Amino acid sequence: MIAPPAEFSLIARHFRPLAGPGALDLLDDAALLDPPPGRQLVLTADAMVEGVHFLPNDPPDTVGAKLLRVNLSDLAAMGAVPLTYLLTVSAPRDTPDAWFAGLAAGLLADQTHFGLTLSGGDTTSTPGPITLTITAIGHVAPGQALRRRGAQPGDEIWVTGTIGDGALGLLALQGKIPDPTGHLAARYRRPEPRLGLALHGIASACMDISDGLIQDLTHLCRAANCGATILSVQIPLSPAAKALGEKYLPTVLTGGDDYELLIAVPPVNTPNLPQTYPLTRIGHFTEGDIVQVHDPTGTPILLPQPGWSHF
Amino acid sequence: MIAPPAEFSLIARHFRPLAGPGALDLLDDAALLDPPPGRQLVLTADAMVEGVHFLPNDPPDTVGAKLLRVNLSDLAAMGAVPLTYLLTVSAPRDTPDAWFAGLAAGLLADQTHFGLTLSGGDTTSTPGPITLTITAIGHVAPGQALRRRGAQPGDEIWVTGTIGDGALGLLALQGKIPDPTGHLAARYRRPEPRLGLALHGIASACMDISDGLIQDLTHLCRAANCGATILSVQIPLSPAAKALGEKYLPTVLTGGDDYELLIAVPPVNTPNLPQTYPLTRIGHFTEGDIVQVHDPTGTPILLPQPGWSHF
Repeated sequence: MIAPPAEFSLIARHFRPLAGPGALDLLDDAALLDPPPGRQLVLTADAMVEGVHFLPNDPPDTVGAKLLRVNLSDLAAMGAVPLTYLLTVSAPRDTPDAWFAGLAAGLLADQTHFGLTLSGGDTTSTPGPITLTITAIGHVAPGQALRRRGAQPGDEIWVTGTIGDGALGLLALQGKIPDPTGHLAARYRRPEPRLGLALHGIASACMDISDGLIQDLTHLCRAANCGATILSVQIPLSPAAKALGEKYLPTVLTGGDDYELLIAVPPVNTPNLPQTYPLTRIGHFTEGDIVQVHDPTGTPILLPQPGWSHF
Repeated sequence: MIAPPAEFSLIARHFRPLAGPGALDLLDDAALLDPPPGRQLVLTADAMVEGVHFLPNDPPDTVGAKLLRVNLSDLAAMGAVPLTYLLTVSAPRDTPDAWFAGLAAGLLADQTHFGLTLSGGDTTSTPGPITLTITAIGHVAPGQALRRRGAQPGDEIWVTGTIGDGALGLLALQGKIPDPTGHLAARYRRPEPRLGLALHGIASACMDISDGLIQDLTHLCRAANCGATILSVQIPLSPAAKALGEKYLPTVLTGGDDYELLIAVPPVNTPNLPQTYPLTRIGHFTEGDIVQVHDPTGTPILLPQPGWSHF
């Protein structure tokens, strides 16, 4: 019999080990999924392009990890439990086999850690940069998904983890700032999706911070017809970010790639906030439509641009 | 308030009109989907790269149509009913707004025609060629999805529609062959997903022909540990393909992009084959592991390569 095309062998070697029960060994036209009974599904898709979302010399296992994690972060922002994912890989024909192996290793480690499996996808050639997408599927109790809209003036603004490390990590990997411990680069390459935070009935709105704190906070405000004031000194910084000093505050406020959660919480619910991850209150929502950052004297800080836009 | 980034305006203008009920106006981190009760979901993802899967001067509405249709063809091959899809678009920053408008118009026309809506996705920039993916979700009665494995020696080999038009259409668009009626180019740009063919309990195996008849037939054989013999004179050709003459038989046999269904049918079930689309018997599965094409004298035809491979 004619040998299978090289593409099939590549898929069998690298991606079949990631395949879950409904994936039919990645041999059929599509995959099957029995939806969990009594649950609503949550669907998200993110693309990553070499040179835009990751660096050409990023280790492929971290590329796989980041691709999965940015999608899981979207599920986390909706309060969903991960279930399965589909992967598309468009790569130049001369991409070394070891690159695919590394990508798959990064995906395998993280899908095991976060409890999901691969259902299917597509592998194609491209004359351009490596371009990857994941569509992730999770589930929530019906009607309990967290939404971006719903914040009210007076609600507190909380964030998980520390802010700014992702954008500072990119600067570090570009050789523009020091990163003696490697903490910032690690945060850029391997963000932590804040899954499992039980916020239904506690948060009035939630999203993940992917395009910069100020821009993403502005999205929550726009969705709720309100404004917001945050205090620069309250923004939680990692020791590595703190060591860089005040000069990088604009990067912290507007840089992307943090994948922390930004959460609106009515003050009455504050005592019920879960302790799963470090949480810090950084400000509150206001009447009006102004989003501002105050320095310790109460003076608004001017920012050159609110965050990242692809277009 | 700070204006939303240009990316949001682009999504709102072009893609929000495609959004279905669970898409939350494409304003949240993810979409919601209530799975149809008592049904199994069917998941598939396909990528298309400019210069690989479509031509740089293909009208953008046909690019959108083809992207959706190749995914719907995978659902058709499993016997699934379309439900929803997610879209990722990676395009250079200088892509004209009219290109996005055309892409969306092609998607809108076809999602209306085929009965599904957009749930979500991602729009990013790229320094490379336009790269698009769709993840399509459909549904089937539990356990009734058609599979690639299952053909038995003696089963008949049937195909929908006509074979070879897709690959010949690419040659026509490249100026390599005449296409006076434009039929071949139209078939390359706008394949017909063979949805709604009730084959459960009739077909023993099914797949769509995307990488070439011989290569895809070989997949069915490999999955079933059998061989196959097809008769070249039985292969259904469009008048446009027929007019090109015998010389293009290898293209018909090995060219990709047909998106017709390739169906294994035990002879006892032949009378029950549905009449939804034109169906033609082109050969039968055999013992052994040889896949061959016979000319009218019964002599096997030698082919330079079985079909398309990306790697």
